[in-house]
Amino acid sequence: MNRRLCLARRPAGKLSATDLVLIDEPVPVPGPGEVLVRNTWLSIDPSIRIRLAETTPDGYLPPLRPGEPLTGLALGIVAETRDPAYAVGDLVSHTLGYREFAVVGAGSQTIGGYGAPARIDNGDLPPQWFLGPLGSAGLTAYVGLVEILELTAADTLWVSSAAGAVGALAAQLAALRGATVLGSAGSPEKVAYLRDELGIAAFDYHDPALAESLTALAPTGIDAYFDNVGGDHLTAALDALRPHGRVALCGAVSGYDGTAAVGPPNLFTMVAKGLRMRGFRAGSFNHLEQPMRAEIAGHLAAGRLIHRESVFDGIERAGEALVAMLSGATTGKTLCRLL
Amino acid sequence: MNRRLCLARRPAGKLSATDLVLIDEPVPVPGPGEVLVRNTWLSIDPSIRIRLAETTPDGYLPPLRPGEPLTGLALGIVAETRDPAYAVGDLVSHTLGYREFAVVGAGSQTIGGYGAPARIDNGDLPPQWFLGPLGSAGLTAYVGLVEILELTAADTLWVSSAAGAVGALAAQLAALRGATVLGSAGSPEKVAYLRDELGIAAFDYHDPALAESLTALAPTGIDAYFDNVGGDHLTAALDALRPHGRVALCGAVSGYDGTAAVGPPNLFTMVAKGLRMRGFRAGSFNHLEQPMRAEIAGHLAAGRLIHRESVFDGIERAGEALVAMLSGATTGKTLCRLL
Repeated sequence: MNRRLCLARRPAGKLSATDLVLIDEPVPVPGPGEVLVRNTWLSIDPSIRIRLAETTPDGYLPPLRPGEPLTGLALGIVAETRDPAYAVGDLVSHTLGYREFAVVGAGSQTIGGYGAPARIDNGDLPPQWFLGPLGSAGLTAYVGLVEILELTAADTLWVSSAAGAVGALAAQLAALRGATVLGSAGSPEKVAYLRDELGIAAFDYHDPALAESLTALAPTGIDAYFDNVGGDHLTAALDALRPHGRVALCGAVSGYDGTAAVGPPNLFTMVAKGLRMRGFRAGSFNHLEQPMRAEIAGHLAAGRLIHRESVFDGIERAGEALVAMLSGATTGKTLCRLL
Repeated sequence: MNRRLCLARRPAGKLSATDLVLIDEPVPVPGPGEVLVRNTWLSIDPSIRIRLAETTPDGYLPPLRPGEPLTGLALGIVAETRDPAYAVGDLVSHTLGYREFAVVGAGSQTIGGYGAPARIDNGDLPPQWFLGPLGSAGLTAYVGLVEILELTAADTLWVSSAAGAVGALAAQLAALRGATVLGSAGSPEKVAYLRDELGIAAFDYHDPALAESLTALAPTGIDAYFDNVGGDHLTAALDALRPHGRVALCGAVSGYDGTAAVGPPNLFTMVAKGLRMRGFRAGSFNHLEQPMRAEIAGHLAAGRLIHRESVFDGIERAGEALVAMLSGATTGKTLCRLL
């Protein structure tokens, strides 16, 4: 059988484990041009929370209905192939996570997909890195810094959710490129992790107030903000940005549970200070995967970049992993390991 | 004596004539490096409303205190000079409007200033055009389209407040550059002006709902939005923008009276659609004044660009002019003529 993590009911506010349910189905059968993948690693990302709401933002994937399986990035081994481009045993990444088996293919209707599964040659590297620092998280951090913020060594950058999968990479990559970096996180443990292990100037966003922490760590303001949080974080960033500052809108986890559906009240400061803000998704920048992997793999190999994983074992724990990650209980890349 | 329009009391909501008062002072005396200017034309712009509130946005000029004179762009004739760079009789523009006489100079503390007064050679052209299409309004429209939106002929552009000084120029310049243009305004008369005189597809933002009008005029969405209004207009634009669309934040007149101090609730669509938004002030792009003047003067001379003025005569009517402009009662460039 194929166990899949499905939406049981729409969460009201914070996601709870009882909003999700594992549902069995027969292992699906690939059609022509498709492959059957046995998933080995599931990427547990905050953005799936968006699709558990009644409606999704304009331009986003549609909401999931109760009973439907969650989707997300995953790695797996080709178990059966009806596409000559793939062989049994190939390691591939695709977008039908949160389940044990998936049928995917260039011709199939992969929901939320980047199209055909991508063959991964992980060499000596841990395969799950291709969901993290060498995969979507790495590309998101890289694109945000290089393409969206056009970061330079002269910049002072604030990264929110800096102990998360994307944030920790963005903060470290920015520091390695010579920028002055501040990172925020939601617990003393995460702040200690950022300071002591990653070497990033860090603060807890709960206390003192964001504006106070930003002023203390960047008394003359910031040049760039890598936003993973939205809400009050974005508001504080707009206030802290120096003239001609830039914002990369990457995520807005503070609003994913529907509690923060107002924009920053100080948006007009963008006019006053000539600020720029740009939203992005890594999937629009797949052409940068190779330079991203070259840069990040080099740092990982040299020990210059720290990568932490929070791993939950078994499809039975996929829901727990998602709830934990959304509540801020995990550090670094959150993963569910299936084999 | 020198009559100056001053803040009488902070307006609560919409500005009313009784919030302003004319106060006399002796004609000021220029010091070394300064000139005395007898103002001839005052530019009546919405942004001064920002400085009448208790607080101003981060990066903006400070609030005016009750009793202080308003400031704004103005044209005048040098009446007395203590700077050899200026001669009596020179036509100059500067930022100490809303008064009959002003002392300005490179070395003086001009509040909100662009620095020294700029000598204007208006040739055969009406001098007040250098406050409008060949001055700040023209530069604002030009910069918004060319620098901020990087407008192309393939774009569908929405300009809000399109019957206003900046909006009418932006809408026409964009159309002259080959773009498809929609303009919104707040009365049937203004919509008729846009449609019949400027040849711009136009709609009244009051009715039907913004989203409905946008869908009717641009069924497949817009590529770019020139924002003079903020609030619900910006929200509607974010929804209507196609992937990779752009927003130029120029003004936010809907929020200047303090009634709309929340940001767009749908900001996350910027991530979903990869949108860009950038705030700007023309004063940061003075290096583009020459190409702007060349383009706009050419269109004006050839009759391809329509320029309308709403003129109020006498410093006694400066307050009435400002109240009328902010309430949407004027069309095109609002001016107060002093001589």
